[in-house]
Amino acid sequence: MGLPLTEEAIASHNAPRHEALADEYDSLGRALARRGVDIAAVKAKVAGFSVALPSWGSGVGGTRFAKFPIPGEPTNIHEKLEDCAVVQQLSRATPRVSPHFPWDFVDDYDGLRQEAAALGLGFDAVNSNTFQDQPGQPRSYRHGSLTSTDAGVRAQAVEHNIECIEIGRKLGSQALTVWVGDGTNFPGQQSLGASLDRYLDSAADIYAALPGDWRMLLEHKMFEPAFYSTVISDWGSSILAAQELGPKAQCLVDLGHHAPNVNIEQIVARLHRFGKLGGFHFNDSKYGDDDLDSGSINPHQLFLVFNELVEAELNPRQGFNPAYMIDQSHNVTDPIESMLSSAEAIVGAYAKALLVDREALTAAQQSNDVMMGFQALRQAYRTDVTPILAMARAEAGGAIDAIAAYRASGWRERKAQQRKPVGLGAGIV
Amino acid sequence: MGLPLTEEAIASHNAPRHEALADEYDSLGRALARRGVDIAAVKAKVAGFSVALPSWGSGVGGTRFAKFPIPGEPTNIHEKLEDCAVVQQLSRATPRVSPHFPWDFVDDYDGLRQEAAALGLGFDAVNSNTFQDQPGQPRSYRHGSLTSTDAGVRAQAVEHNIECIEIGRKLGSQALTVWVGDGTNFPGQQSLGASLDRYLDSAADIYAALPGDWRMLLEHKMFEPAFYSTVISDWGSSILAAQELGPKAQCLVDLGHHAPNVNIEQIVARLHRFGKLGGFHFNDSKYGDDDLDSGSINPHQLFLVFNELVEAELNPRQGFNPAYMIDQSHNVTDPIESMLSSAEAIVGAYAKALLVDREALTAAQQSNDVMMGFQALRQAYRTDVTPILAMARAEAGGAIDAIAAYRASGWRERKAQQRKPVGLGAGIV
Amino acid sequence: MGLPLTEEAIASHNAPRHEALADEYDSLGRALARRGVDIAAVKAKVAGFSVALPSWGSGVGGTRFAKFPIPGEPTNIHEKLEDCAVVQQLSRATPRVSPHFPWDFVDDYDGLRQEAAALGLGFDAVNSNTFQDQPGQPRSYRHGSLTSTDAGVRAQAVEHNIECIEIGRKLGSQALTVWVGDGTNFPGQQSLGASLDRYLDSAADIYAALPGDWRMLLEHKMFEPAFYSTVISDWGSSILAAQELGPKAQCLVDLGHHAPNVNIEQIVARLHRFGKLGGFHFNDSKYGDDDLDSGSINPHQLFLVFNELVEAELNPRQGFNPAYMIDQSHNVTDPIESMLSSAEAIVGAYAKALLVDREALTAAQQSNDVMMGFQALRQAYRTDVTPILAMARAEAGGAIDAIAAYRASGWRERKAQQRKPVGLGAGIV
Amino acid sequence: MGLPLTEEAIASHNAPRHEALADEYDSLGRALARRGVDIAAVKAKVAGFSVALPSWGSGVGGTRFAKFPIPGEPTNIHEKLEDCAVVQQLSRATPRVSPHFPWDFVDDYDGLRQEAAALGLGFDAVNSNTFQDQPGQPRSYRHGSLTSTDAGVRAQAVEHNIECIEIGRKLGSQALTVWVGDGTNFPGQQSLGASLDRYLDSAADIYAALPGDWRMLLEHKMFEPAFYSTVISDWGSSILAAQELGPKAQCLVDLGHHAPNVNIEQIVARLHRFGKLGGFHFNDSKYGDDDLDSGSINPHQLFLVFNELVEAELNPRQGFNPAYMIDQSHNVTDPIESMLSSAEAIVGAYAKALLVDREALTAAQQSNDVMMGFQALRQAYRTDVTPILAMARAEAGGAIDAIAAYRASGWRERKAQQRKPVGLGAGIV
Repeated sequence: MGLPLTEEAIASHNAPRHEALADEYDSLGRALARRGVDIAAVKAKVAGFSVALPSWGSGVGGTRFAKFPIPGEPTNIHEKLEDCAVVQQLSRATPRVSPHFPWDFVDDYDGLRQEAAALGLGFDAVNSNTFQDQPGQPRSYRHGSLTSTDAGVRAQAVEHNIECIEIGRKLGSQALTVWVGDGTNFPGQQSLGASLDRYLDSAADIYAALPGDWRMLLEHKMFEPAFYSTVISDWGSSILAAQELGPKAQCLVDLGHHAPNVNIEQIVARLHRFGKLGGFHFNDSKYGDDDLDSGSINPHQLFLVFNELVEAELNPRQGFNPAYMIDQSHNVTDPIESMLSSAEAIVGAYAKALLVDREALTAAQQSNDVMMGFQALRQAYRTDVTPILAMARAEAGGAIDAIAAYRASGWRERKAQQRKPVGLGAGIV
Repeated sequence: MGLPLTEEAIASHNAPRHEALADEYDSLGRALARRGVDIAAVKAKVAGFSVALPSWGSGVGGTRFAKFPIPGEPTNIHEKLEDCAVVQQLSRATPRVSPHFPWDFVDDYDGLRQEAAALGLGFDAVNSNTFQDQPGQPRSYRHGSLTSTDAGVRAQAVEHNIECIEIGRKLGSQALTVWVGDGTNFPGQQSLGASLDRYLDSAADIYAALPGDWRMLLEHKMFEPAFYSTVISDWGSSILAAQELGPKAQCLVDLGHHAPNVNIEQIVARLHRFGKLGGFHFNDSKYGDDDLDSGSINPHQLFLVFNELVEAELNPRQGFNPAYMIDQSHNVTDPIESMLSSAEAIVGAYAKALLVDREALTAAQQSNDVMMGFQALRQAYRTDVTPILAMARAEAGGAIDAIAAYRASGWRERKAQQRKPVGLGAGIV
Repeated sequence: MGLPLTEEAIASHNAPRHEALADEYDSLGRALARRGVDIAAVKAKVAGFSVALPSWGSGVGGTRFAKFPIPGEPTNIHEKLEDCAVVQQLSRATPRVSPHFPWDFVDDYDGLRQEAAALGLGFDAVNSNTFQDQPGQPRSYRHGSLTSTDAGVRAQAVEHNIECIEIGRKLGSQALTVWVGDGTNFPGQQSLGASLDRYLDSAADIYAALPGDWRMLLEHKMFEPAFYSTVISDWGSSILAAQELGPKAQCLVDLGHHAPNVNIEQIVARLHRFGKLGGFHFNDSKYGDDDLDSGSINPHQLFLVFNELVEAELNPRQGFNPAYMIDQSHNVTDPIESMLSSAEAIVGAYAKALLVDREALTAAQQSNDVMMGFQALRQAYRTDVTPILAMARAEAGGAIDAIAAYRASGWRERKAQQRKPVGLGAGIV
Repeated sequence: MGLPLTEEAIASHNAPRHEALADEYDSLGRALARRGVDIAAVKAKVAGFSVALPSWGSGVGGTRFAKFPIPGEPTNIHEKLEDCAVVQQLSRATPRVSPHFPWDFVDDYDGLRQEAAALGLGFDAVNSNTFQDQPGQPRSYRHGSLTSTDAGVRAQAVEHNIECIEIGRKLGSQALTVWVGDGTNFPGQQSLGASLDRYLDSAADIYAALPGDWRMLLEHKMFEPAFYSTVISDWGSSILAAQELGPKAQCLVDLGHHAPNVNIEQIVARLHRFGKLGGFHFNDSKYGDDDLDSGSINPHQLFLVFNELVEAELNPRQGFNPAYMIDQSHNVTDPIESMLSSAEAIVGAYAKALLVDREALTAAQQSNDVMMGFQALRQAYRTDVTPILAMARAEAGGAIDAIAAYRASGWRERKAQQRKPVGLGAGIV
């Protein structure tokens, strides 16, 4: 057992593309040099950037109306790791996988860790799941999990989270991401105050079980699956909860979990200002939690978010160490292609944020030269950083054109022969 | 086989409630008389109002994340009809059921029609389903149905709609409701212009198969399951399509299928103005297509919609004959209770709209007496019409307090013994 | 100089309405008694409730496109107080006025306090204004006030707020409401982090000048006049700022200052949970900060907000003493009529919240009886509390039908003869 | 009297920038050639593209809260034309000005036309104004203009529009843009049906006065200044009105006049599909009708809109001849700089749309290769077209870096000495 793709395949894919890339990289280098930017330094930062893949993201996703599976989809964590390894081999930006339990339960976690390592992968934050009932589960989450009025349900949900921490330790993770769908569909269904009290109590029990070097990442979401109220619905609720829990609790931002029109980059700046920016789930959306491919709908917003992240990196205040993960639902594409495309979009947004002339930006801001403040960002945004990304990938053994290389590999067709088919249905799993 | 509940059970439930109801009805009658309103006339209009039940609404619904079934849920059209019959017996406002195919396929539709009739039910508009793949289906709707680039897929989808018409004729329906989820998740995925052209071609093929006394109701939806574009996303697309198809094509408004903040009652007025107001799917929502119980979130909006409907009834222009249906996803309640509560909310909104002093309203509007125009609506809205609804129900053999009567009947507990359990999963079916 | 309207005028207006009111009040009393509710106790609570009027709300408001003045509008604080006194005489629910500076600057504040007292009015929270430039003002707020990069501008804005506190002390106020429009129209215009730092510094300077028994109310707003970012844009930013400032800083909720679809009643519960619920600006809206009449668009939301306020009153946790004010822009109505109508809507929402059977509600919530939890609220909401409000007003010397009494008084026509006309223009002042 | 800037000034600004531009243009040319695209052909299309400037856009705008004027703002149509000429000299993309009446009333329109011509400018669509009252105006638009219940008000509004047509003929315009703010702030204020009837009647009277070669452009807007309902609130209302009026009536899309989340590019496709796409008002927005600089918030959306426009140009169906105009409120920038920046953003979006490999796009769409359909657009979008725009400008006598050239010219400082100052206030004028 080794890496899914051969180095030779990637190299031979790259070979006919090197000359054009070199020209475009050099041309960009000259243009950037005229702005006082060293392209090699930017490329080095880009090469050091990574984002985790969600294990479940390698499968085809669905809506409440339907799921349309494709032949060759992975059906267990082993196959999911394989597909993530393909993404990492080609993109060189996704060296870690974020598991989800109970979906990824196995008997031997040490073995799983080794299996991943052999595929060139490590493990990122562990995700717990108390928004679904599992066959044979003693108590139902129909009316909530960490916030349930039933102490037994709360205990079961806490226990599951602690189990996730235990598994995560074996896998080499250092963070637990807690998202609960707990909330209501009717005014009056629950006490809005008391349900938060119960959430905080349950979360404190989980927090108490965190190893010393772990973080607990609280993920807020405006709505869905609850459609009237959600207990941790916004960044305000999230940060107040994180404050109550303690320094190891931080907030995780999913780009699709906000009210319409909200300025998400300012939320990033706020969380950083108050020391609670813990991580990101990257995706894009137009209407709600659409879980579309990162940067496919509003790439400028993604850039503005990274602009704040680079600002935070330069001004760490109380520290800056966010956990980055792709979190998308790939309903109509091959998930590997979507993850390749999304990784490129995310790294590209980071690269553009690196190009911002921060001296000019700060000077314009200080003197209220509104137009020049804006132009400092715009100049960076409109730069085509594709050559930097491609060169960084190629130098690290990845593909110049990742999707083309993937298609050329015949991976999915091969797997369609080997893997068992996924049935019809609906939903995310 | 007869009605699910006995007349005696309902009567004995009502007996101890009659005196209080009489006092409240008489008190309201005096108050209305002071406004020049005859309560008996309002009650008579209320008694003549009805709204269809969706067959699928009698089952527990879910989100893409999970479904939490309850014991005693119906698992086939026969059981669904039984549950709808309970709603009708208690509410006296829901005498028709709207079927959905292929979910409600049976071998013998004449038999099904008789079965329904024995339960006191008829059939309303037929709903086709080309947003899901069915086991064994020759071609997939993964990339669209009526709008597919594949002529074979389009033909299959058209064929299914025509089959629905055929079934509907046997069941006594006179309308086909066509909702397609067709759309895209990515810019560039489809040609926005060409996909509408294909939709119109396919819809014309269905239209051509309509019997002379049938209508085809086009249902628009902003998003979900498609998250970048949807072919019939708004009332503008819907009415233009209906215009192209012909006089038997009309538009159906689902209250949850609009952009945030949109003035839905004005859309109702517009559709009526241009002769294309065909029907309603009632529900409520706070965020998206939440499919919550009618009137649970924004009862004032429901009233304002009915205010336009009463206006339309009084000024029929090119005719006024809308098809009304409840369309909700009952995720955390007993569906029968939600349908009882929703029927009351819908009828109540109609009753309040009937109470508007239209002479005063029109006079205020003509003279730009803004405050009095508003107060004419507000006076009607704040009136508690509960006694009118309860009296109308009681006089028709229904329950004064429908939910209490249902609970007293022990229906669900009995069915939990008799019906086979529903498995875990996600989604709407 | 005395009260604007005579007691006789109000009494003679009420006389022919008493009999109908008595019947409706008694009828409702019987119905409530059957639910175990004592109508007299509810009436007593209602009689004890009050909401402040904004001085500027007595003038006609406008949009950026236009203002359409009416004859007889007030043009200075003295005339504004007169109009507010009319509202208070008729509604008996608005005994205080909230002034706005520099709009309401006078030479003699002791005299102004006596003038108000003679009109039956006191003063509520003082509002500062650093979102406009005034003629002759040394420095411009074009690029911000409390957040300006220019220390001189910040000092000027802080100074103005301290002056407002000084004036407020003379007027008998105990709170300063601080709303700043500071923000940006372009990405890059300002540092999102640094501008908050500057805000916190400036606000701390104001906080330091607060008398011991005063509160500083921070008012957040999503957008307008800034259209890309606003420094205190949401309740999260507001509560974190209030935490930094200290115990006398609390958050003020304006119902129109939120993102679309946001659950405002949950924000109320959150602010209360964390001890920072300071006050409300009541109005209604459909699209943005529309500043429409309270309860005119979404009266159910207003009820749900009051449901949380009554919950908070019953469970004061760290105290509960919110400042209530109407904050509306009366663009197309007579402002006195709108304030009368709005006061009734606000008091009515409070009355309905008092009617909620909290024992039943809590029991349903504890046992996850979702439908009964909802019905506990719904039963209260659908009750027509008009007779309670009217009886409470009449007993306190107010009008049974406040708008009708106002119209009968000929107040505006009289003032149209006496007051100087307001010119054309745009905007709020 | 001649052009505001000298050719020499622009040429000397360009001189030191030519070498870098040549390198970047050539580099891009090689990259595009590898994609099969001829950069010279794209540049030629770009050079042929133009967008009109709004006369009022040359002044500083404001909100309802405040306006912050700058020294040297234009205060009449003559000064506005001068400023627009500066924009045109530098950008070479804005050769026409769109006037607004009564704001731009003069005594001699033939003279005005000559004055503009001498400045290198022509006139575009004429804008009428019935959303404000003017001093001395016989009847008020407080309660509506074209939709007023008062026949005299409607006649006055119709008359004004016809006067605008007359003036436009003298100025060389061929279109009248009709935007009305008519609507309501309260449910019940007006009959939603009857107000549309009145609008259609009034609009027909205006339509009847159109010269044979003119168009009437109907501009819809969701809200503001009316905050409950607006008579032409969406594209559905707009196109149905245009259909009723006749072939010379078309729809105009302002990018900020839509509900949150709406897919505007699909609306463009729909209007084109049904032969009614008449024109655009370009700006950008995050929350409502923010009137921010084009492309400053969501440049990807602007690209997607132009993608549809290029599609329409290639597939003209019933013709394609849209009127393009910038429509922004420059609250915190020098309006000339904002118009220069916006013109570049608009032309740049067009250039990127031209780069789309339409053969690849269509092939992907036909075969449901979702990822490749998306990538066809994405490849074009991420291309930095700055060198093409700059080269086209330079070749036409404009500036390589338009804002830098403007700043170097000292135009505003000079005008600040010459023009009379603008007073404080609020609003758009």
